Amino acid sequence: MVESKTEKLAMAVANHMEKGDKFSSMLGMKLVSAEAGEAVVSLEITELLVNGHGICHGGVMFSLADTAFAYACNSRNHKTVALNCSISFLAPVKIGQILRATATEKSLKGRTGVYDIAVCDEAGETVALFRGTSYRMKDFVIETD
Amino acid sequence: MVESKTEKLAMAVANHMEKGDKFSSMLGMKLVSAEAGEAVVSLEITELLVNGHGICHGGVMFSLADTAFAYACNSRNHKTVALNCSISFLAPVKIGQILRATATEKSLKGRTGVYDIAVCDEAGETVALFRGTSYRMKDFVIETD
Amino acid sequence: MVESKTEKLAMAVANHMEKGDKFSSMLGMKLVSAEAGEAVVSLEITELLVNGHGICHGGVMFSLADTAFAYACNSRNHKTVALNCSISFLAPVKIGQILRATATEKSLKGRTGVYDIAVCDEAGETVALFRGTSYRMKDFVIETD
Amino acid sequence: MVESKTEKLAMAVANHMEKGDKFSSMLGMKLVSAEAGEAVVSLEITELLVNGHGICHGGVMFSLADTAFAYACNSRNHKTVALNCSISFLAPVKIGQILRATATEKSLKGRTGVYDIAVCDEAGETVALFRGTSYRMKDFVIETD
Repeated sequence: MVESKTEKLAMAVANHMEKGDKFSSMLGMKLVSAEAGEAVVSLEITELLVNGHGICHGGVMFSLADTAFAYACNSRNHKTVALNCSISFLAPVKIGQILRATATEKSLKGRTGVYDIAVCDEAGETVALFRGTSYRMKDFVIETD
Repeated sequence: MVESKTEKLAMAVANHMEKGDKFSSMLGMKLVSAEAGEAVVSLEITELLVNGHGICHGGVMFSLADTAFAYACNSRNHKTVALNCSISFLAPVKIGQILRATATEKSLKGRTGVYDIAVCDEAGETVALFRGTSYRMKDFVIETD
Repeated sequence: MVESKTEKLAMAVANHMEKGDKFSSMLGMKLVSAEAGEAVVSLEITELLVNGHGICHGGVMFSLADTAFAYACNSRNHKTVALNCSISFLAPVKIGQILRATATEKSLKGRTGVYDIAVCDEAGETVALFRGTSYRMKDFVIETD
Repeated sequence: MVESKTEKLAMAVANHMEKGDKFSSMLGMKLVSAEAGEAVVSLEITELLVNGHGICHGGVMFSLADTAFAYACNSRNHKTVALNCSISFLAPVKIGQILRATATEKSLKGRTGVYDIAVCDEAGETVALFRGTSYRMKDFVIETD
């Protein structure tokens, strides 16, 4: 399988960001793939990631989706930040489940973009839906030749 | 200062939930106060809580607000979960800052409620605004006599 | 083409609601189709529907999406209301364009549901993305035998 | 009462926008006041503004809040548009009620802002909470000397 130019750049940016992202590393997130406007990140729900009701903390699901969102909206190497995000929780998630967040670019015009991120479990059930609005800064994420 | 009955119950519920909330403990969150429909939670941003741009991860700010939201909407001892949440990021947060999330009940009708959570830094600047919609289940959180 | 039982019920409910919906009639909305958890509504943007910048009012786009959402979440004849909705505006809409809102059920568990509504113009471009959370009441919308 | 310079500009911009806003005029909205980052708009709910359940259409409440949001975020005469908005519906609204939407600026940094709009009835009860994210364009709304 040949990597396209856009995929190569998206992966280089995501790898760089993942390296600096101490929080997502601490939780155990793993970058699965990245392309222009797209990214997939996975996470196993351990017993350290539960809330006061004994199920996966909503903040963990948000963080997973937000991380995929960050890789997707920075994928063209323009430093981009989140303006606002919303998340709908569809099903409780238990310890041991492996979640996967898939980010898709729905719109990119001028400096702002909209991304949809679906969080699914291993059985393919959607457990959360996230939508993020991004804003492009003037810097680059990584240096390229 | 005398604790009211509602405050006593809200604190008992929040203390119980905090004990089981492995995720917020791992991040270093601390319950500051709770009353009927209200809660305050604080968190120091350490170097483990940054994202790929070197600033506090959006998921950390969300998790802090979401935890205050959980204590506030469970404060009357009815097990209550989040249906959906939105967050607006107003300012970047650096390592070393101490954040405080303050949850306020804006509406509670039948089984659903709306809560506003403001996340502020030590200087009192609002760094994020969170709004959550809650749904009451049939169980209680803790046993009372 | 044979109408299924679920489609027949969804259309009967939507037709009944459309008849009583004075606001969407005033704007010129037309029910295109309805099925269990789904609905399509269309609207031509006339010169009466613009805002102070001379383009289609954001409230018009919201109202169109919200109406499709209402038909979709009431489609099984359980009276259902909106708890909260969010909308992202992707492109300005001019006088003369014909918009179409397509509502899709993403989740329905217990009394709450999540619906995605895409608003597109005639060329198929998405001009707005809407997400709604619904709550089922105890009544029916129409009487059936 | 002496009008400040900022209030004078905000009112001039809002008056200009209101004149062109055919949609809000058709619904019967009235600009009550405007200041830098703030605006109040009122609306009487007539029988033309109801939905298929016989109560005020959610799109009407959204449109009212969105109009106050527009006046508030354009109040400094920089043409500004909505990126996304969310609304929580707290109580049904009946024919004959007079609603008032009050927009407040929560943040304005660079080209983006966050505004909270509360929609209240005559008794002061909050019937909807709206939050909007704005984006400043490069044009002005009105010409000034």
